[in-house]
Amino acid sequence: MQIAMLQDKIVPIEDLEPVYFDRGIYFGDGVYEVARSYDGKIFALKEHLQRFANSLAAIGITGVDIDEVRSRVHKAFEAAGILNANIYFHITRGSALRKHTWDASLEPIFFLTVTESGDNADDKAKGIAVSTHPDWRWRRCDIKSLNLLANVLARQDAAQKGCAEAILVDEAGLITEGSHSTFFAIFGQKLQTTPLTANILPSITRKSVIEAARNIGLTVAEQSLTLRQASHADELFIAGTTQDIVAVVRFDGQVIGDGKPGKYTMSLTQEFLKFTV
Amino acid sequence: MQIAMLQDKIVPIEDLEPVYFDRGIYFGDGVYEVARSYDGKIFALKEHLQRFANSLAAIGITGVDIDEVRSRVHKAFEAAGILNANIYFHITRGSALRKHTWDASLEPIFFLTVTESGDNADDKAKGIAVSTHPDWRWRRCDIKSLNLLANVLARQDAAQKGCAEAILVDEAGLITEGSHSTFFAIFGQKLQTTPLTANILPSITRKSVIEAARNIGLTVAEQSLTLRQASHADELFIAGTTQDIVAVVRFDGQVIGDGKPGKYTMSLTQEFLKFTV
Repeated sequence: MQIAMLQDKIVPIEDLEPVYFDRGIYFGDGVYEVARSYDGKIFALKEHLQRFANSLAAIGITGVDIDEVRSRVHKAFEAAGILNANIYFHITRGSALRKHTWDASLEPIFFLTVTESGDNADDKAKGIAVSTHPDWRWRRCDIKSLNLLANVLARQDAAQKGCAEAILVDEAGLITEGSHSTFFAIFGQKLQTTPLTANILPSITRKSVIEAARNIGLTVAEQSLTLRQASHADELFIAGTTQDIVAVVRFDGQVIGDGKPGKYTMSLTQEFLKFTV
Repeated sequence: MQIAMLQDKIVPIEDLEPVYFDRGIYFGDGVYEVARSYDGKIFALKEHLQRFANSLAAIGITGVDIDEVRSRVHKAFEAAGILNANIYFHITRGSALRKHTWDASLEPIFFLTVTESGDNADDKAKGIAVSTHPDWRWRRCDIKSLNLLANVLARQDAAQKGCAEAILVDEAGLITEGSHSTFFAIFGQKLQTTPLTANILPSITRKSVIEAARNIGLTVAEQSLTLRQASHADELFIAGTTQDIVAVVRFDGQVIGDGKPGKYTMSLTQEFLKFTV
């Protein structure tokens, strides 16, 4: 008899719900998005859904109706009634007894949560410390997949060092991005960030930050940074969906600028917020 | 109200079982093993448990009693009563609302299945075709983690080409290993395979194959192979827990040797089986 065991309890395999055989857990065989709302309005959902469609296509999950995903997001967001919410959703390839290859008959599984956005006003006011970690992730970081163990290990390492984010560094010594954010530096009136390749996520917030930078008169250089360059920047910040823009005031222990959020970082934060209303 | 959604059904978050918030599915934050039995006897369980302990330690999952895992494996294997079984088990870091960092209070989650081993006598008799694929995996393939999307995509690509395994090739053009096997070549009386680094799994079958090779008088070179070298080998084979040794008779479409399993591959298969009784 084929059996399963949950903790120390034996169960016939056929008695277990499909969630136990989700390819999401066996292989991380799925993709996800996190959108957020500001005062009852979901920001950039169109862009998140487009990227979600790209991720699904990149790993060959077919038959997902993106319009249906959109309507589920709206339905759930309305049901939750949370004004400032994080909306997380993923689709995995389906549920089946474990084998690497998949059958075309698998039904994708949709899962979503709506939770309160954390308040990061304090981080934004004071700036955060970050530490660096080798970028152990796979070669397709342009796909927003459920394979996030490298991100988790780097982020926990940062937390153990009293830091709020891990900045990932590739084998050539270049910064790619944060464990769950994009990394930016300002030198004079120039904003600099890693170019879009398969090594980083095509961040939606990144796109808005670049637009905001141009709006306030900064030039933009999409060029990778070394650790030495980053630690000598006038200003540093990270950006991502759930926290938008947060100043970095310590980089591997070294104080950046005068140790407070820089003037352009603050201007960009204001400019960015205009997009969300 | 914080809510979840399963397919198109809205559910209060607190009504969902912990399995839905398993960090295994959110992040692939767990490690696994697959052992198998031959005629009622589990092969190399001690080595699998040692590697499992190493994987747990490498990702910082603490508080797991390996003796308890061993006794669960035996208990489940006996309950199933399958003579030739695959025994899969994983431990994830625990269940919690999604955030990258983890709290020390999380309780690891154990999951195991015992299923019938597939019959691969035909593959073993005739040999298989393999195709190559870029190695997209992360930089810590020495950890047997649940982040297996790169393996899955490579393996599916091979299946679409009519091949039984994908052989992964790194950015330098060197073969690392198969998507779920170790890769070996024979030149004259020399067995050659990738050295153990963070780029490949420290395969238990690999260790036995090397021992078997020395027993039958082959020399062993732990040295990476280029595609060109592999395609000019006298014999090729893959090895892993669930299939042990399987000859490779086509490599990216090119016939190896006379297109049949080679003599040393067959000798190694016999020699290997001695370890399993």
